[in-house]
Formats: sequence, C-alpha cells, structure tokens
Amino acid sequence: MKAKELEFEGHLIDSMIFPKALDVILDLEGEFEILEFRIGKKKHDHSYARMIVFGKDDKHLDEILKELHKIGARIVEVEDVELARAPANKVLPEGFYVTTNHPTFVRYNGEWLEVEDISMDRVIAIRDGKAYCVAIDEVVEGDLIVVGERGVRVVLPERPRKSTYFEFMGGKVSSERPTERIIEAIAGEIYQLKLNGGRIAVVAGPAVDHTSARNALAALIREGYVNLLLSGNALAVHDIEISIFGTSLGMDICKGRPVAGGNRHHLYTISKIIAAGGIRKAVEKGIIKDGIMYECIKNNVPFILAGSIRDDGPLPEVITDVMVAKKEMKKALRGVDMVIMLATMLHSIAVGNLLPSNVKTICVDMNPSTVTKLMDRGTHQAIGVVTDVGLFLPLLYEKLKNLERRES
Amino acid sequence: MKAKELEFEGHLIDSMIFPKALDVILDLEGEFEILEFRIGKKKHDHSYARMIVFGKDDKHLDEILKELHKIGARIVEVEDVELARAPANKVLPEGFYVTTNHPTFVRYNGEWLEVEDISMDRVIAIRDGKAYCVAIDEVVEGDLIVVGERGVRVVLPERPRKSTYFEFMGGKVSSERPTERIIEAIAGEIYQLKLNGGRIAVVAGPAVDHTSARNALAALIREGYVNLLLSGNALAVHDIEISIFGTSLGMDICKGRPVAGGNRHHLYTISKIIAAGGIRKAVEKGIIKDGIMYECIKNNVPFILAGSIRDDGPLPEVITDVMVAKKEMKKALRGVDMVIMLATMLHSIAVGNLLPSNVKTICVDMNPSTVTKLMDRGTHQAIGVVTDVGLFLPLLYEKLKNLERRES
Amino acid sequence: MKAKELEFEGHLIDSMIFPKALDVILDLEGEFEILEFRIGKKKHDHSYARMIVFGKDDKHLDEILKELHKIGARIVEVEDVELARAPANKVLPEGFYVTTNHPTFVRYNGEWLEVEDISMDRVIAIRDGKAYCVAIDEVVEGDLIVVGERGVRVVLPERPRKSTYFEFMGGKVSSERPTERIIEAIAGEIYQLKLNGGRIAVVAGPAVDHTSARNALAALIREGYVNLLLSGNALAVHDIEISIFGTSLGMDICKGRPVAGGNRHHLYTISKIIAAGGIRKAVEKGIIKDGIMYECIKNNVPFILAGSIRDDGPLPEVITDVMVAKKEMKKALRGVDMVIMLATMLHSIAVGNLLPSNVKTICVDMNPSTVTKLMDRGTHQAIGVVTDVGLFLPLLYEKLKNLERRES
Amino acid sequence: MKAKELEFEGHLIDSMIFPKALDVILDLEGEFEILEFRIGKKKHDHSYARMIVFGKDDKHLDEILKELHKIGARIVEVEDVELARAPANKVLPEGFYVTTNHPTFVRYNGEWLEVEDISMDRVIAIRDGKAYCVAIDEVVEGDLIVVGERGVRVVLPERPRKSTYFEFMGGKVSSERPTERIIEAIAGEIYQLKLNGGRIAVVAGPAVDHTSARNALAALIREGYVNLLLSGNALAVHDIEISIFGTSLGMDICKGRPVAGGNRHHLYTISKIIAAGGIRKAVEKGIIKDGIMYECIKNNVPFILAGSIRDDGPLPEVITDVMVAKKEMKKALRGVDMVIMLATMLHSIAVGNLLPSNVKTICVDMNPSTVTKLMDRGTHQAIGVVTDVGLFLPLLYEKLKNLERRES
Repeated sequence: MKAKELEFEGHLIDSMIFPKALDVILDLEGEFEILEFRIGKKKHDHSYARMIVFGKDDKHLDEILKELHKIGARIVEVEDVELARAPANKVLPEGFYVTTNHPTFVRYNGEWLEVEDISMDRVIAIRDGKAYCVAIDEVVEGDLIVVGERGVRVVLPERPRKSTYFEFMGGKVSSERPTERIIEAIAGEIYQLKLNGGRIAVVAGPAVDHTSARNALAALIREGYVNLLLSGNALAVHDIEISIFGTSLGMDICKGRPVAGGNRHHLYTISKIIAAGGIRKAVEKGIIKDGIMYECIKNNVPFILAGSIRDDGPLPEVITDVMVAKKEMKKALRGVDMVIMLATMLHSIAVGNLLPSNVKTICVDMNPSTVTKLMDRGTHQAIGVVTDVGLFLPLLYEKLKNLERRES
Repeated sequence: MKAKELEFEGHLIDSMIFPKALDVILDLEGEFEILEFRIGKKKHDHSYARMIVFGKDDKHLDEILKELHKIGARIVEVEDVELARAPANKVLPEGFYVTTNHPTFVRYNGEWLEVEDISMDRVIAIRDGKAYCVAIDEVVEGDLIVVGERGVRVVLPERPRKSTYFEFMGGKVSSERPTERIIEAIAGEIYQLKLNGGRIAVVAGPAVDHTSARNALAALIREGYVNLLLSGNALAVHDIEISIFGTSLGMDICKGRPVAGGNRHHLYTISKIIAAGGIRKAVEKGIIKDGIMYECIKNNVPFILAGSIRDDGPLPEVITDVMVAKKEMKKALRGVDMVIMLATMLHSIAVGNLLPSNVKTICVDMNPSTVTKLMDRGTHQAIGVVTDVGLFLPLLYEKLKNLERRES
Repeated sequence: MKAKELEFEGHLIDSMIFPKALDVILDLEGEFEILEFRIGKKKHDHSYARMIVFGKDDKHLDEILKELHKIGARIVEVEDVELARAPANKVLPEGFYVTTNHPTFVRYNGEWLEVEDISMDRVIAIRDGKAYCVAIDEVVEGDLIVVGERGVRVVLPERPRKSTYFEFMGGKVSSERPTERIIEAIAGEIYQLKLNGGRIAVVAGPAVDHTSARNALAALIREGYVNLLLSGNALAVHDIEISIFGTSLGMDICKGRPVAGGNRHHLYTISKIIAAGGIRKAVEKGIIKDGIMYECIKNNVPFILAGSIRDDGPLPEVITDVMVAKKEMKKALRGVDMVIMLATMLHSIAVGNLLPSNVKTICVDMNPSTVTKLMDRGTHQAIGVVTDVGLFLPLLYEKLKNLERRES
Repeated sequence: MKAKELEFEGHLIDSMIFPKALDVILDLEGEFEILEFRIGKKKHDHSYARMIVFGKDDKHLDEILKELHKIGARIVEVEDVELARAPANKVLPEGFYVTTNHPTFVRYNGEWLEVEDISMDRVIAIRDGKAYCVAIDEVVEGDLIVVGERGVRVVLPERPRKSTYFEFMGGKVSSERPTERIIEAIAGEIYQLKLNGGRIAVVAGPAVDHTSARNALAALIREGYVNLLLSGNALAVHDIEISIFGTSLGMDICKGRPVAGGNRHHLYTISKIIAAGGIRKAVEKGIIKDGIMYECIKNNVPFILAGSIRDDGPLPEVITDVMVAKKEMKKALRGVDMVIMLATMLHSIAVGNLLPSNVKTICVDMNPSTVTKLMDRGTHQAIGVVTDVGLFLPLLYEKLKNLERRES
C-alpha cells in the first residue's frame, strides 16, 4: 500500500467538496483515514480537513490523487510543478497535465503563478516565467509543459452563502419553471452587469432569424447590451436576406409564409454580399439597411462568423478554417463576464469549451438536450432556459426597457 | 376479376382526391380504367370522373371500395345502406361500418340522412328514422347498425381556393416558423370567430399553471373568449394552490423558486377543497380568490375535469370514471367551432377523437411530437404551434386586446 | 430567535445527508451551530452529528425542522407522534403529515411502528395500534391522522459502499452510455433477483405492440420473468389485434406496412372481445392465440388495465374508474422488488407514485423527458435507459437466455 | 394580363405533379386554362397536359413560371438557355438560375446537355460545351452562367408503380413503425445493391463510438459494405481512444462506467496520433489496433474528416478549412448509390446538400427532428429511422450476415 497526506480548506461540506473527495476515493477503490477535521461551527467559518489516502501501489495512488486534485485537494508537502519540453510542434511530453475550466495556479520557482486564459482540455506552458493555458496545436517545440499534478492548485468556485434567484437556478434545466420570471431574473442580472461596466457576448444560431427574435437582438446590439457576437454564416445570411428581400430562407417574415423563389433569395443574398466585398462594405453602400449584422457594423460591435460544412457561399467575413476561427473566438472572449447562448448546439458547446468557469453562462434552447449536453461537456456553470427563442428575446428586451424606465 | 363503376365529383385534382384514389387502387394491387374525365377548365369549375375499378375477387374488390369510399367515391348505382341488428348491448354485427371524422350521410329509405355528432372510430345507428354516430359502449341490443360501405357518403372538406394565412398553416408543424406572426394570425381568427358568435373550447394541461400562462388563461375566460374548459385534476389543483398558497407544486410562482413544504401545499389544497365540498363551494366561500377555476365559476363557463391514474385526491368535481368523462366531453363539445389545445398530449388526442373534421383545431406544445401524434391519430385538421405555452398565452391575450382597441 | 437540538447518524458525509442539511438551513435563512461532529475515520465507520438550529420565530423554526426531518434529522428529545381525528370522510385535520416514499417509522405509545405500504404524497393513519400509509380518499371519519413531524422518523437509503454497475447508474439518465452494456447489466440484475425468488412488475405502453418488442415481452411472461403487468386498454387491444388480424392499428407488423381497413381492425378487435365476454374468455375460446395478454392468462400472471379518456371500447377487463384502478395497482404492487417501465409516461409516473423508494425501478423510453419527469415527480431511485424499446426488449430476452445457458 | 403556354408529360396525376402545378398557380394568385388533358387510362399509360397560365404582368407571370419549372413544366416553344458572364471570381450575374437536386438538362446550341454533378442550391456554368453544377465560390470570372429558367428542364423522379417496402417508407419518419422490420428491409436493399456492384457511403457522428455500434461499423467496413466514410474529428478520436485506452471520452466501454482520468485519455489520444504523424502512420506503427479508422486504413476505404469549431486537436487528417472539406466530400460522393447517415445532424444535412435526389438516403437518429430537418432542407428522398444507433448497427450487421448465409 502507498499513502500520501492531503489537506482541504474552505466551505468543505456545504460546497460538497469533501463529500466528493470521499466519493472519488471509494469509487477508485482506495482507502482513507481522516487525521483532522475542523468543521466551521458558524455560517461564515471555513472548514479544514487533513487525511491520508491509500492506494494499492504508486500507480493506483497516483490515479486517485489526480482526481482529488481536480476538486481542490492539496498535497501537504508542496513542491514546484514538474515540467518537460515539447519534443516538436504540437507534440506533448508523456503524462502532460490537462486543464479544467476553474481558476488554476502553478508553483514555479517557489512562487504561485495564476494560469492565464484558463479553459478546459488544454495544457499549461511556462513561457518567460508566466503560465499560459494553450491548445495542443499552439504548442511549439521546446515549450516547457506541465506534467502530472504536483504543484498545481485548482480553485473551485465556492457556492455563494446567500443565493440570488439567478444563482439558485445554476446547473439546472427544467421546462416547468415559470418562464417569464426567469427572463425577468436574467434581465436583472444583465442590467446590473451593464451598470457595473460588464461585458456580454451573444452566441446565436440561425433560428434567431427564423423567428421574431431578430429585431430584439438588433435592438440589444444597438443599445449597447451586446459587446461581442459569435455565430456562423447562416445567421448572417438569413439576417441580410431579411433586410434585402424581407424573407428568411424564402419565407416572408411579416406574413409568415413562403414567397415564390425562396431558396433563390438565399443565394442571391450571398452573391450580392460577395459582389459588394463583404458585410461591412454592403452596409456602407446601403445594401444592408437594418438587422443584426447592420447594428454590429454601425455600433462597432465585433463579430466572429465561424465556418461549417453546411455553409452556402460563404460570406467573405466567414472564417472557413475552424482552428483559426476558434483562436479568434478565444481571443475575443477575454474579459467577457456573461455569455448568452441562443438556439445553437454546435456554437454553444464550442464557446463553452473556451470559457473559464466563472463566466456567467445562459443557454436558451427549445430542446432540453442542448443544455444537458453543454453541461455534460463540462460547462457546469450554465443556466438552461428551455423555451422558444422567438418569444424569449422580445420579452427580454421589454424587461430591460422596464428596468431602464424604472431607474431613470 | 370483379369490377364496379364509381364516380367522383368536386375539385378532384387540386384537392388531391383523384390522385389519392389512384394511389389507393395501385397500393392495393387493383386495376382501373378511366371512362370519363372532365376537368374543370377554370378556377371555379368542378371536375367529374367516372371509372371502373377491378379486383381479383369480390373480397379484394370490396377492400378497395372500402378505402375509396373513405375519400369520397360514390358507387354509381346508389342503394340504401345495409343494416343489421346489434345482438346484445355493446355487441356489434359482423362487418360494421367504422366512421371517419368527416361529414357523413347515409341513404335510408331512399333519402340521404346526415349522421349526427360525427366523430372518428365509432359506428352509425339508425334510431327513429335518424342516423347517429355512437361509441361501441353506447350500442344497445336491437340497434340498427350500418354494415359495409353501400349507401354511405363521406364529404371531404375541399381546400379553400383562396387560402388565408391560417389555412395555409393547416396540417403542418414546424418549430422554425416565425412564432409571433402565427400568434397574431390565431388571434385574428379567434377575434373574427367571436364577432360571429362562434364558440371556443380550451383543452389545457397542468403546464399552464407552472408557467406564466395562468393569468392569461384566466383573463381569456373572464373576457368571454372561452366557452368550455376541458382538463384534468392536476390543472385545477395547481391553479387553486396558487390562489391559496401562491405556489404551484410548492414552487413560489412569483419568485420562481421552491418554498419549504412544497408537496404539502399540493395535498393541503386538495384537502381544503374536499372539506369545502368542491371547487364551486370553495369559490363561494371565498377560499379560492382568483385563477382559471375561479373565472370559470364566476363567469358560468362550464368545465369538465377528467380523471387519470396519476391524480392525487382527486377534487370532488373530477369525473373518475373515464368513460363517463368522455361522454360528458362529447356532449359539451357539440356546437364548438374552435378548440385550442395547450400543452397536453393525453387530453389533446382524447378531444381530437371526439371532434368532427370541420372544427378548427390549434395545438400548442413545446414538444413537436404531441402535434405529430395528434395528426397521426386522425385529427388532420390540427394546426401545430411548437412553442412555449408560458409565453404563447400572454402574447395571444395581448394581441387580442390590440384587436379590440383597434376596432373600438 | 428560537432553537432546537437535532442529531444525525449514519454515513453522513458521503451520503450527502449532512451537506444537504446545512443546505436546507441556509436556503431557509436559518442559522446553525455544530455542537459535536464525530466523523467515521475509516470506510465502514458511521458518523454522528449534533447541532442547534435557530429560526426567527416558532413558525420559521418549524418550517426548517419540517425540511430537515425529510432528510433524516431526529429531534433529540423524542416524543410520540401528534394525532388528530379526521372530521369527515376524505377530510383531514389541519397540518397533517405528508409522506415521502422512504421507509418511515412513527413513535406511538413509546414504541416505533413502521408505516405499512409507504408511498409518497399520502397521510399516516393509526388504526388498531398499527400505522398505515393511506390516500386522501381512503380516510374515514374519525381516523387518527399524524399531524406535524414530531415522533416521525424517515430512513433514507444509504449509498452502498461498493457500487455495482447497476447502482452506479442510479438516478442518472443519458443517451450516450453504451446501451448494450446497460441491457446486460439489467439482465444480470433480473436474473439474480429471480434466483432469489424476487418479484418483477412490468409497466408497458402501447408502443410495445407497435414495435418488435411484443414477442419478447410475451416470452418473458411465459418464462416466469414477469409477475405482474400494469398497462391500459391500448396495449391489450393492439396485442390482441395482432393475434387476430396480424396488424397493430391496421399496420401489418410482419411486412411493416398498413393494410386496407386499418382502423376497422382496431374496433373489430374490441367488438369481438366484448362479444366473447372479455380477454380471459376470448383466450379460452381460442379467439386469442398468442401474445402478451395470452401469456398472462395462460400463465396466471395478474394484469391490471387502467382506463384513460383516450380509450376506444374499452375491453371488459379495463377498470374505467381511475381511483379504483389505482387502488388495485397499489395492492398488486405489494411485495414487488423491481419495476420495469416500458415506453409510457402516464403509467410510469402513476406507478412511481405508488412505490416505496427501495423498489428497483428501470424506465426505458426513447424520450429522455419521460425519465426526467419520473424523477422530478419523486421517483429518485429510477434508472433511465434512453433507447428504442423495440430493440431493447428482444436484446434483454437474448441476454437472459445467455445467462440461463451459462448457468446450466 | 400576360400568358404563356406550358406542357406536362408523365404520370401526372399519381405522381402529384399536376395537382402541385395547379397549387402553385393558385398560391401565387395566377389563373390557368386547361387546353388539353389526356389521362393515361391504364396503369402504364403516361398522361399529357397542355395549359395556358396567366399572370398580372410579365414579372408576375415570370414568378409563376419559375415555380412551375421546378416541378417539371416545359414552356412549349423551346429555346436555348440564356447565359451571362460572371463579372468576377465568385460574383454572379443578376437573376442566375439556382439548381434543385433533381436531374437537370439545359438546351445549349439546340442540344440538351445533362448538368453534371447536380446538387441543390448551386448554379450552372457552361464550360467547353458542357454543363456543370458549381458552387458560388467555384465560379471564376468570365464563366458562362445560366440565367432564368428558359431552356432548363428538370426531371422529377416518378413514383415507382410497384412500391417495395423500402420505397414505401420514402419521405416518412415515424418512431412507431416496427423497427426490426425496417432494419431487415434496409439490410435487403444494401445486400442487393452490393450484389449489383453499388457503392455505399456512411456518414457517422461520434455517438457511434459511445455505443455498441463501433464494432458493427468496423465489421461493415472490413467486409466491404462501406465504400466511403464521412465524419469529423470526434468520431476518429473516440474510436482511436477505444483502441488505445479501452475508453471513449474516458468511459470504459466494456464495463460502461467512467475510469479515472477520462478527459486525459481524450487529449492523450490526440497527442499520440499527432506525434505519430497521423492516423495512417499510427495504424502502420501498430499504435491503433482495431476499430473504424483502423479498418478504413487496412481496407483502403477512403475517409474524409471535416473540421468543426468544437474539435480538440485536431488529428492531422482532419481538414480544418470547411470549404476545402466540402469540395473533397462532393468529389468523393460521385458515383455513390446509397448514403447511410448515423446520428449526426450537422454532417447529415451537409452531405444531403451535396447529393442528387436519386441517391438512396437513410438517416438513423434517436431524435426525430434530425430527419425532419434533413427533409426540410431539401433532401426529400431520405428515409428516416428513429431508433438507437447503438442497437441499430449491430442488428443491421446481423441481418446482413443472415442474408449472406442464406445465399451461399
């Protein structure tokens, strides 16, 4: 049997950290002995625990420690991280450390460095005395890569002691909650966040154009509620088709019925924008007169359109290389405080993978499985709202206007 | 080979009646020869077709004729219906005729009688010289029951030549249509129907209480838009729980979060209403102060609550025998012009089975399969709106108020 | 401020009981002070905690205690339960105790009585010195009904220390797990349970007949794997239609395509069985020759068919009064060790409400929301398998045959 | 009023072509007069119709003709196609013709040329006297592009007069059909197609690895049933992770439960394959020992892995530029007779867009909306099977083996 001493500190019990730790040990068929356990006797006290964990052999013990590490355990004798050189571009040393999306620190030359740009399923590289979270394809030959768990500290978000309605919802999805109240609560969060100078990104699928939501999203952009738009070719094409032809995929969005020559409008739109030299030029030339993309251009709200194999055209602004698109998205998401995901599974999961766990994340979709999958893939902080985006966005906008009126 | 001469009349081609007839013959491996085919040369002309249908033998020919009959074919030599006596209560003669939900006539003593109360999957009984559509369990010994297809005429609804937006939607479901426009169109239909003195039934599931829709439905009842409410125990209990405790299944519907003692409220509500002697008495005693059931009682809008094996309690007004409930529903639905189904698969399909095909039917559900199943089970006239009922009803109410204001 | 001393015992931490308790107190805005906390230092040790809970006033404290009670807290000074008489039939005293589905004891005359037939959302009546769990509509005037939480002890199931694959799955639903493995694990559980003389109930929806699953279910009944069948009219009618006409709702289930006269077969089947005097007589007369109902009759496996407002007919054995059906179901479920729910939301939730929490419950449905709702409604012990019941049942049968062969 | 004479030929009525034509005219508020209508009097006769269509003005008439053209109408006085030069790369002349996915001919210099590589939502370019179907981004300056509908003939597939089970299913989706029969019918089609030297492409999503389907797909590739595999990074990574670590996304696929260090396996797999120089090299070096990708390499079955913004890594063989990936897919799909789509909405719709309407297309997904959307987007020929791919593929393989045995 092999053993190691560990310690935990924080709101161990009501944040479920300690129960989870015992879970992990038992699930992996390890043993434990608790040496010390000081529980916070009042609401604001921290707790402290010290235990020895036993494994069958070094490998087994190591396995257990890896998992405990992820939920915040610290090995008592603290040492520096172990580092190894990347043998070639994109090639990693054996046993490299894989990141979570929680704030992370590494002990390097006796000091704790916070890892920059943390997001899940990446590696940690030390460059010029700083710790960076990098994707596999960004690793260059000779990079110092963190190996194993030693000297790495993960800080799990502690559950707030006084939960707001919004937080109360966290990590839950239900189609039976009272929708209008949820929208009100979200409006309140957004309004507050904007008062404090926070930044909001919107991730939107093409269904936003198929429904009544387009005008609401355009208004939110125009009025400064959106700081970044992440989407794909389809959203932009449908949005522009509405501006030029009054149809979306050939459907008259006022009368709500197809007009003759539907799919032609779709391709005609793409062709016109290519001929104009792109979305920005088409706005400047007066070809696009309103809508989501129009407001982005007019209000200097940056947007990133990532390509997909379903795309027609695509529009000149679409980034067809997905790895390039991902890097641009990662860069643009720096400093964002809240992400609102609207009716898109692909983009929601992709963006979720790029976010640290302390970014507020709201996922709106008629299909509950979009939200479930988003969380299954690690974006545990997401709040799911199972509703019709076509009614959600206009109502969200209305609630925000109410808040503005009440304050002024 | 056996043969029979048939004729068709009406908008044969653009109503798809004639193509469907050829379909049926070929699918059943019959043969046909067209004797005459006069196509309407202009928009308003009727068409007329006469053909001979061939089957391998009498049985085969009969099978084909049965199916052609359902889509409106008439055997040329018209004879009276064939009748046979029911040998015992609920027991039918061999080969009894099974109804569709389309307007139906039988030739009895040389005259065409319209079958009263037509709905699908029932039988036709001649009583006192009149033709009635009756359920199996309503058949009494000695009833004259229609057997075979001879002398029975089914009148399919012809497609309107100039389709309104509303009709354009008919028989289609999509979650990608622009929802707000659909709601506007439905509001327009309801408003018009009310102007003309039409009657509207609402079929509602308990999700209406879980969401923001309850107040909207209560207002629609109060303002005379609803003439009949069909639902179950759960809707009434949740609705009353909100009135008494401000919670639905223990969830505070204003703050949108559970309060201590949730399920207790549910049973406490049921117990209070039983102790009061039922919903009506509880309204009269001032125990119930607002909501869906309150408005039904106060405005004399009849309601039928049908029991299910999931029910707690149930409330005294709930009809626990499902066959009795069904008969009451059938009776109450007479003369209704439109049915709005809200977030309930069980009740929607049950009510769909009781409706003639010329009653306008709107089915609102977040789950597209509710609408699909409703149509698969024969309610082809239903218009499906795949959206969140919690946002649908408040918006429908708002659109109706707009129409009222505009008119006055 | 009001205070009360409580104690907890068991695997407090890894069963999440203690964290949940702190959760409850904080959520309800109470305060606590931990007096003693002895944690089990090794795997098999129990833990013990003693704490004082504070509320703003008696009502607030009471609210908190009610919730803590549900998760196993004991008030230190133990007293007898408080009882009050039911003032009339079906009418309950104020503040009556509402049951959970966990094993429950009441202290009556200084002794702990186990509550018989425990299931959720009912009340406890003391009759002849015994404690019974009864539904509201079973309460008779003068019954001694438990009021408040004092003297009531709820025993939560402790998590097994060594989880089998099967238990590992508990309380989780996912469509991404490797289905064939899950079926194997379920087959293993069933096989083992049968070796030990356990009893299995099957709850089945009509989709079982629409798919290839009917023969498999019939075989499971014939071979003694099923001790009770709970279903509705539709399952029985479709099953018998297949036996008589080779079609289900008019679809040829061998060729998988509709035959002429589909819906007629459905009603003809019902009519034939009514004429024969019911399912049992129809089997005896040789009208029904195979299938699910046939095997139930031939092998003396009891079945309960509960009515619904969607039913055609219904068949004579169908219990049309839902409250009577529910009572029969409750009675028949006594002593059942496992329930397998197949493709039916209505019946699954209804049966779930009647089960104690220690009955193994498996819910198979293509639609993940059936399983989610089942758990939301309190049947937390359910294991969800999101798959096609038409492929699930044949494969389950095959895996059971493999196990039989291996053992013999 | 403006008028134009049109003619139609074929199985006009039972293929619904003629009714659809009248529909179109009425929907667009045109008028018509039928000049001649010769209906085929027996089963094998063609019909012929000649009519004048009226529009309010040239523009209106043109609109109607555009739509009629899509369903096979021919303007009586046949002229050559109208052509216009592309003014720049990717820039199209005004009014360019947009293709359907049906076989299409253009009249050029008095001769009918078949358009090569037809697929939907593209344009037609005449190059060196041949007609090509090209995507917008493939258009080069000076290309002769077809403009308007004149001289273009679209040949709709006529419904087969004797429908096989397989064809009977066409264009329909239902979760209530008897699944095992459908799989048998599909196995029969595949077997027959293979006997005749047909080519089959498989489009697969990562769920194939999460379930028991991987071995079945690997076997189908090994035994020559698959000629082309289209997928993405995730399928390949999970498949290889299983081969190297025995886990898929960290889940032990034999025991069906997570092992310690799940997500690490995912990234470790990617890192190993990058280090080896790609999938092919990793197979050659013995790092990958079995599975889907292994069998592709060993049996020279070409595969295309298209990138997406969700990808980790990605593997070296993944084409990260989506437009390049699309072109490769289009090229590889030439000459394919059947496409089987397994549990992937993105790839299914993308591939559907690249297929002519005469390629048999089967779409298997647990979620009915995948199939519905595929058809909504124009792939009307698709047959939807709503079932669990984890049980579908093993059963399909078994049915194919049965057919092989029976024949030999």
